[in-house]
Amino acid sequence: MARRKRAAEAAQAAGADALLVTHLPDVRWLSGFTGSNAALVLAAGGGARSGRAKSGAGLKTVLFTDGRYTAQAKAEVAGIRVVIAPKAAAVAACEWLAETRVRRCGFDDGNTTVAALKQMRAAVPAKKRRGLFEPVGPLVSKLRWIKDPAEIAKMRRAAALGCRLFEEILGVMQPGMTEDAVAAELEFAARLAGAEGMSFPTIVASGERSALPHGHATRAKLPRRGFVTLDFGVVLDGYYSDMTRTVHMGRATAEERRVYEAVLEAQEAGVAAVRAGVSAGDVDEATRAILRREKLDEWFTHSTGHGVGLEIHEGPRLAAKQKQQLEAGMVVTIEPGVYMPGKFGVRIEDMVLVTARGGEILTPCIKAWIEL
Amino acid sequence: MARRKRAAEAAQAAGADALLVTHLPDVRWLSGFTGSNAALVLAAGGGARSGRAKSGAGLKTVLFTDGRYTAQAKAEVAGIRVVIAPKAAAVAACEWLAETRVRRCGFDDGNTTVAALKQMRAAVPAKKRRGLFEPVGPLVSKLRWIKDPAEIAKMRRAAALGCRLFEEILGVMQPGMTEDAVAAELEFAARLAGAEGMSFPTIVASGERSALPHGHATRAKLPRRGFVTLDFGVVLDGYYSDMTRTVHMGRATAEERRVYEAVLEAQEAGVAAVRAGVSAGDVDEATRAILRREKLDEWFTHSTGHGVGLEIHEGPRLAAKQKQQLEAGMVVTIEPGVYMPGKFGVRIEDMVLVTARGGEILTPCIKAWIEL
Repeated sequence: MARRKRAAEAAQAAGADALLVTHLPDVRWLSGFTGSNAALVLAAGGGARSGRAKSGAGLKTVLFTDGRYTAQAKAEVAGIRVVIAPKAAAVAACEWLAETRVRRCGFDDGNTTVAALKQMRAAVPAKKRRGLFEPVGPLVSKLRWIKDPAEIAKMRRAAALGCRLFEEILGVMQPGMTEDAVAAELEFAARLAGAEGMSFPTIVASGERSALPHGHATRAKLPRRGFVTLDFGVVLDGYYSDMTRTVHMGRATAEERRVYEAVLEAQEAGVAAVRAGVSAGDVDEATRAILRREKLDEWFTHSTGHGVGLEIHEGPRLAAKQKQQLEAGMVVTIEPGVYMPGKFGVRIEDMVLVTARGGEILTPCIKAWIEL
Repeated sequence: MARRKRAAEAAQAAGADALLVTHLPDVRWLSGFTGSNAALVLAAGGGARSGRAKSGAGLKTVLFTDGRYTAQAKAEVAGIRVVIAPKAAAVAACEWLAETRVRRCGFDDGNTTVAALKQMRAAVPAKKRRGLFEPVGPLVSKLRWIKDPAEIAKMRRAAALGCRLFEEILGVMQPGMTEDAVAAELEFAARLAGAEGMSFPTIVASGERSALPHGHATRAKLPRRGFVTLDFGVVLDGYYSDMTRTVHMGRATAEERRVYEAVLEAQEAGVAAVRAGVSAGDVDEATRAILRREKLDEWFTHSTGHGVGLEIHEGPRLAAKQKQQLEAGMVVTIEPGVYMPGKFGVRIEDMVLVTARGGEILTPCIKAWIEL
């Protein structure tokens, strides 16, 4: 309820007397509903359905979904009216809106397609339609950037499970085993530990493939000598974890060792730079400066990190020049990497909770050099 | 190349001399590229970059991505110019477009957000922008609805792997085992068999939970007596499989048995109705008519099926009154279900290849009553 109130207030501040929410993680965050066809309308008191008694200053919330989710909505949603309609939930929501006193309904233009907006408009009579839909950007998603204590507890558990799985998989990896098999073992253990799924297709990138920042597990075999990058996460109670470790099979060359230590130093500098009030760009610069000093920055071809929560990629983006300030309660990844095509790559990533005093690592497993 | 030519022709038929493709499965289908930040521009010969010699009638294709994917693009893409730019690929593509003779660039408004279109427009000088971006709908996705022989071979393999996994898991399931553990075993076997991932979060819905059409696996335990619905798929070489079987643990009641047989008859009637030239709505009606006769149609709360391929949900939709005709080479699911909240549910689903002579089941594993 507090979340819905804050979302409605944010909409009001953006000049809207209602908010149409169709991005599913936002719907879940506001209502608890996890179905795949959903739209939520938050309407200020004055937005009550015309012809009915005004509900006073109260916030009116209605969730729209279809018949596949009747039982699920009843189980998941409390204190919100649920409307079941055999159509796209956003369309049902707009047909409902058409009969209210709402004059200006905010929507997230970053999560609404051009065609969906056309459908939304078509669901409302021409007279009512004029000026009704107001693009207000990712209002709810931005509220989600900052996690409350209950959410932080869930993210801690998801992150801790990721760490445990990493430590377990170290005991399983050996030369000749396929990347696929490593991913299979990891995912099996995740499931048995209660994960609802993986955060994204598991990355197991070995040997030369470690130079692919997004090298999903293949039938390639772990080498006798060379890096293996593991980048994975688990979904626990809806919340995503995300971590990367790079380990070395067999004896490393001096260059491999040097690059690893540089990435580790960069990663630790990034974590050390995290604190409420610091800009995202400054954290990015903290990792990049180390790799620049080591003349490795040309191989660091992506940004330093991103927010994570009910989605694997949320804001803020930790990228060059981003002015967005970090705030207490954000959870971000710090994941610099160096990728030398045809040779090898190294990436190290933690999830970090932003606090007023600094960053707290939620994935506190070993980052020191590991030779298997 | 043939695919890109057909896409360009479809764009031309829609009044556009270029096509901007940003939906990732479409990009993959047209170019082979599988990165997560990508845009592809197909421009007719006349759309060559101004100031350069005209390339004649040839089709110009450019792929845009960022530095994370330099090596991957080189490995995956042949015969297409690749532009690496540290920004959203669609923005890079539009900046490129701004310097060409392209006058009208089609884009898929069903896969472009309102905010993305705004960014695209902002990347082009005001003078050039006027009338440049033309919503043409899912042109490329629609071409993908019809699979070529190489794609059908891949889908056969994905579907066959799904069947094998189902038959294996039957030997593992027993009362007291959690739904999670069933999913874990299934997904582990899928990985070891080479699957890149699962098509969607695996559904294992047991006992009363079988009445949830989308009941993802939980820690609930398989009952001594009751249904278990398994709905899952594997991704193999980019192509998705999708199948559902419902089995019974222990002895069933007469009602359970009756509902199962009705759903099975409905499902088989749906498969029998599949043939090139038949409308999607008629196939939906074939399943629904059986359940209506059995007075179970009020519990069949979704549509009969959907296309499947490089995405788990593609067109055509097999839903009531859909006039879209089936065409040879489409692969669709036939998946009627009956869901009685608080009691139980049954769903049976096959992947079916549309041919001129009828439907060919790609998931030919047992559908007869199974009591474990």
